[in-house]
Amino acid sequence: MAGASQALDSLFYPESIAVFGSVKQGKIAHQVITQVVAGAFSGTLYAVNPKGETPEGFPQITAAAGVLDLKEKIDLAVICTPAVFVEQVLDDCGRKKIPIAVILTSGFSEAGNKEGEERLLATAGKQGIRIIGPNCAGIMNTSIRLFASIEVRALPGRTAFITQSGAVGGAVLALAELRGIGFSKFVSYGNRADIGENELLRYLGQDDETDVIAVYLESLQDGRGFLAAARELSGKKPLLIIKSGRSSSGVRAAGSHTGSMAGSDRVFAAMVKQAGAVRVAGMEELLDLCYGFSTLTPPGGRRIAIVTNSGGPGILTSDRGEELGLEIAEPSPAVRKKLKGFLPEHCGFSNPIDLTVEGSGENYRRTLEILLAGGYDGAIAINVATPFLDSSDLAAGIAAAAGQHLNHKPVAAVFMAGKIVESGIERLKQGRVPVFPTGERAASVLAAMSAYYGRAGGGSAIKATGPGGRENGGPDGRPGARLNDRATGAPGARLNDRATGSPIARPERRAPAAAVKEEALPLKAPLKAPVTEPEVVAFLQGEGFPFPAHCFVDSGRQMEKAALEMGFPLVMKIVSPRILHKSDLGGVVLNIDSREELEAAYQDMENRFRESAFQGTMLYKQVSGGTEIIAGIKRDPDFGPVVLAGAGGVLTELLQDSSLRIAPFEKDEALAMLAELKISRLFSGFRGEKSLDLEATADLLVLLSQLSVKYPDIRELDFNPVFVFEEGLLIGDARIIL
Amino acid sequence: MAGASQALDSLFYPESIAVFGSVKQGKIAHQVITQVVAGAFSGTLYAVNPKGETPEGFPQITAAAGVLDLKEKIDLAVICTPAVFVEQVLDDCGRKKIPIAVILTSGFSEAGNKEGEERLLATAGKQGIRIIGPNCAGIMNTSIRLFASIEVRALPGRTAFITQSGAVGGAVLALAELRGIGFSKFVSYGNRADIGENELLRYLGQDDETDVIAVYLESLQDGRGFLAAARELSGKKPLLIIKSGRSSSGVRAAGSHTGSMAGSDRVFAAMVKQAGAVRVAGMEELLDLCYGFSTLTPPGGRRIAIVTNSGGPGILTSDRGEELGLEIAEPSPAVRKKLKGFLPEHCGFSNPIDLTVEGSGENYRRTLEILLAGGYDGAIAINVATPFLDSSDLAAGIAAAAGQHLNHKPVAAVFMAGKIVESGIERLKQGRVPVFPTGERAASVLAAMSAYYGRAGGGSAIKATGPGGRENGGPDGRPGARLNDRATGAPGARLNDRATGSPIARPERRAPAAAVKEEALPLKAPLKAPVTEPEVVAFLQGEGFPFPAHCFVDSGRQMEKAALEMGFPLVMKIVSPRILHKSDLGGVVLNIDSREELEAAYQDMENRFRESAFQGTMLYKQVSGGTEIIAGIKRDPDFGPVVLAGAGGVLTELLQDSSLRIAPFEKDEALAMLAELKISRLFSGFRGEKSLDLEATADLLVLLSQLSVKYPDIRELDFNPVFVFEEGLLIGDARIIL
Repeated sequence: MAGASQALDSLFYPESIAVFGSVKQGKIAHQVITQVVAGAFSGTLYAVNPKGETPEGFPQITAAAGVLDLKEKIDLAVICTPAVFVEQVLDDCGRKKIPIAVILTSGFSEAGNKEGEERLLATAGKQGIRIIGPNCAGIMNTSIRLFASIEVRALPGRTAFITQSGAVGGAVLALAELRGIGFSKFVSYGNRADIGENELLRYLGQDDETDVIAVYLESLQDGRGFLAAARELSGKKPLLIIKSGRSSSGVRAAGSHTGSMAGSDRVFAAMVKQAGAVRVAGMEELLDLCYGFSTLTPPGGRRIAIVTNSGGPGILTSDRGEELGLEIAEPSPAVRKKLKGFLPEHCGFSNPIDLTVEGSGENYRRTLEILLAGGYDGAIAINVATPFLDSSDLAAGIAAAAGQHLNHKPVAAVFMAGKIVESGIERLKQGRVPVFPTGERAASVLAAMSAYYGRAGGGSAIKATGPGGRENGGPDGRPGARLNDRATGAPGARLNDRATGSPIARPERRAPAAAVKEEALPLKAPLKAPVTEPEVVAFLQGEGFPFPAHCFVDSGRQMEKAALEMGFPLVMKIVSPRILHKSDLGGVVLNIDSREELEAAYQDMENRFRESAFQGTMLYKQVSGGTEIIAGIKRDPDFGPVVLAGAGGVLTELLQDSSLRIAPFEKDEALAMLAELKISRLFSGFRGEKSLDLEATADLLVLLSQLSVKYPDIRELDFNPVFVFEEGLLIGDARIIL
Repeated sequence: MAGASQALDSLFYPESIAVFGSVKQGKIAHQVITQVVAGAFSGTLYAVNPKGETPEGFPQITAAAGVLDLKEKIDLAVICTPAVFVEQVLDDCGRKKIPIAVILTSGFSEAGNKEGEERLLATAGKQGIRIIGPNCAGIMNTSIRLFASIEVRALPGRTAFITQSGAVGGAVLALAELRGIGFSKFVSYGNRADIGENELLRYLGQDDETDVIAVYLESLQDGRGFLAAARELSGKKPLLIIKSGRSSSGVRAAGSHTGSMAGSDRVFAAMVKQAGAVRVAGMEELLDLCYGFSTLTPPGGRRIAIVTNSGGPGILTSDRGEELGLEIAEPSPAVRKKLKGFLPEHCGFSNPIDLTVEGSGENYRRTLEILLAGGYDGAIAINVATPFLDSSDLAAGIAAAAGQHLNHKPVAAVFMAGKIVESGIERLKQGRVPVFPTGERAASVLAAMSAYYGRAGGGSAIKATGPGGRENGGPDGRPGARLNDRATGAPGARLNDRATGSPIARPERRAPAAAVKEEALPLKAPLKAPVTEPEVVAFLQGEGFPFPAHCFVDSGRQMEKAALEMGFPLVMKIVSPRILHKSDLGGVVLNIDSREELEAAYQDMENRFRESAFQGTMLYKQVSGGTEIIAGIKRDPDFGPVVLAGAGGVLTELLQDSSLRIAPFEKDEALAMLAELKISRLFSGFRGEKSLDLEATADLLVLLSQLSVKYPDIRELDFNPVFVFEEGLLIGDARIIL
């Protein structure tokens, strides 16, 4: 089978194409041929159908009854025959040594016919031919005027658009046509029997004709492969992603539509961040971003100037921009002075700069040039016309200023609205100034671009604090001690030597995630289900996770020794295979302050749980102070191991305050995870409270991410709570499901 | 001066109009005349300018050098003369007994010329003429083909649009023209020297030609007047509001643009809720909602069916709808059976119903009719076309189904996209089916409508819980007592008899807010600045607010008596005019458990603060348990007294979890306020915790709202914290600023 790159070269740059299927008016093959011809494809086009009929209306096209009848070399097959014939046609194509086939025909896995699709794939494998589709809308490459598709022919541009849904593809192309927005390549890959988004992303990453890549997804072929492919693009070519199936009905529909099982949308959202890609919600937003990213110079920062000839639309633009993170900062005194030097007095000299309805093209030009030279990273030029205002002059002024700055700063235009500004918009397009329908949308695009390129510049949102000087575990100023009062029952506990972790510790800093040699993995966790609390703690401590001093005891002598070494206060938790919800059943005793209390607590527990398979108790040194967070590992059907961090206690669910990352990851991702939390400000010492150890918390998450990769048989792991201190942290309770 | 209704009748239904200003091509008056003539106004049009010139190109129009030279009665003056002449022209108009003038001329308060605008208003008052403007873009009434404006002429419709910004008005009209969306009336009221949004809202509320009212605002003429006018519309005519100046740069720009001081956007947002109006962020969203509200039957609920001929766009619609609160529920087995009776097997029978690319007009019609008769409250019909698909047939099927259900259920259409669906969209419009550019936008409209009409149906988001049976003030299961450990210093405390509030109490249920006779108000709060803690507590307790048992003491004997009556534990707080931050300076002692400790604490405080104007101490019975919230009063420049409720403790600022309402209000608003909080789920007993007394908390907010109206000299009031229990609540600390 041909490599992806070679097959995809043949897909996008064929010299000859054979279209298979009925060539009667209205039939799919006829539609494809119509588009190929209308697009003025410069290569050779053949029609193949059982009767060898010439396509209606296209007498110039050579037809054949079978592809093997053609003498010439064929680079690309486009198959539109009824589903029952596709396998045979594909086999013929393989024997003809065609490297790749686009199969538009539907009636395969999307209609429940998985076997048919598997047979296609088997045939393709046998014959060494690659497949796009089936059940797709075709492909385009505007650079060679290739439109092997049933959709609206794309205008030329620098964005490649690949889509799982042909209809979304078609709709975006039709919307783009209205606005004059172009594309480099288009691929509707439908059921994705063979080539999917991952191979296409890698190919397009190397494509000199493509600056921006847009993807519409309903499901993933291989989640981790997608992350890897997307990561390779990061910092090189912006990747814009619509992933539908965000809601329960959407997931249901996507599932029934594509036959794929959907992973969690929250995990997908985390993946987008890790990949450095841009998530987009809807089609119009996608189109706006394709347009902006492919035509505007990347802004060097977030300071945007707005120049307008009307107050209201300028303010709406300002509002939206600031909400999305732009700085609509006032001009400097020097810049203001320059503007006042030539603009009429009644203009607005704050940002937005309001030239008023009298604003001329020349004033737009000079104002924009002064602002862009005066500290702004980009500009939005707004013209709201009346039927009596000639917008062409304004457009010329804006285009002149944008041209001056074409390789330095982005200038987006907004000409409102409708018929009365058509000539102005035409003039702007000639000057390569992108035009957006409203100021709000232009602001959204610049905000997304400045966020994207700002991120590419690096930097996590919360700064790590330096080591503090506070004594370990002191009270945090609130009445009553916080303690590790939660625990889950783990049947069959065994004696486990008391570990000697320092009372407040940091997670071990292991080798960075990249150093976890994937070939040496996976290992089997040295645990047996049902796993017990003493085992869990011993295993995790061995892996570098910090727990309070602790000890399993099942006799008075052990207890005395433990108390002597650990000191009071202590927490006692029942160990019994039958007691799962210890707290609820009185299986946890807090604030044990003396040997007498310890003795009494043990006796009481033994008495109460004698009939409940009592095996002994875990004793922990009671934790005092600290702020509770949660952390854990889960497995996603698309992406495998995922690490979670969140606010602890009642906040976890009340605020749904948690963040995710796909494992393994490095510390920068761990810091970004923590920065996403609503409680992130607690780390830097919110409202006079002591700061929390951000470094140690991030290290804990990195260590968890390594653990999740190392031991794939750990299905789920929960630390709830983790007590985070000004220095270090301690795990209050750990639960593992194998 | 004419009443608003009479003057506005003359504005919208004039039989004769005089346009003032130069009638040369390109001048504003000439533009207005052009639009009036092009719109085919059926009344009489006069041009008035110093030379009595006939407008260029309009020889049929009678001209005069002065309005007093005209014999005929004039109903409406449209003034476009240079600013310096406006006052004289207005005076003439008044003498001519013209009831109302629209002044387009700029150069008044928006350009710093406040005096000029005040003189206009004085002239208007003297002559009994009302004003729209100055600095506006004119008015329209499509029902009589009146277009006295320089903007794009609106198509006829059922939405009235009033706007502070002429440019936003013009842009929305131009966008509307592109989509064929119409309006009943249009008013650009500019600087709002006289008639503003409030009078217009009242008039349009009574206008039989208007079903929906849209407003663009940058500032308010009279906030409480706006709330009152908006409330009158609630449940009768949907009121859609864009209010710009949401961001700091937006506020700056709106301020410099309109010269008005902006109130807080959060208060405005609260007002919108209280008014039962709909807040809209941008121009396209406004237009979508105008279109939907004015053409679609109100949905009776949130269950929406999506019928599509393509998966992807259906899923995107489903995602957006569900995110915004629609139920994209599956069809019932009976409905599904009916659909399977005639649809091909390969269709998708979940919601979205996917007819596939083969879906015919007839199948759209039958499917929609079955779904709308089968339990759905409305439908979205999506067609994504290719250049080879005839959309007219699909449009006819959808229009037929929508026509069947025209007076029962809303049907919105989405035909994508661009040129290839133009004929289908035309067919839908003929069938009075509104068409939206994307499914996402159609879903947003139906979500907004179902939320609006659902609210109109009444019902607060959290249910009040019945009275519980838990003993007062018991521990809440957490270690350590919570207590009223915060207090603000209040200088000059006086002896204040210990109040006899029950340890855990409910706020008094006073007469409902409406019964607070506004004519009897305002009263002066019986407090003198700087106000002291004992005074504050006594005053508030007298007003019905519940505090823990407390007592001011400045001698040992009083203390003993207090301790005897209140019982331990107690909290002691310093009373000194010099100590403002008591906690920080050790001026608060908690957990006083015995007479000895009390004596020692008092001695210690007296010793430490002897040099700091020590006057004595407040003793409070220490509060145990309870969940902390905050509540308070502040004053807004637009809306006056505002009540705030929020999460207590560190959460207030960390989560910015608070909600606002303009006072006074009734209990339903108080419950809605609490339902808005992120912590609202705590009231119903989150995660096994005890529930909190929602009724008592709502009563507290209503009482606060009444207090804020009764005593306008209370500038600010903070309860921080309020301890809320399963039954009742107690105010832990109160602060008043006069």
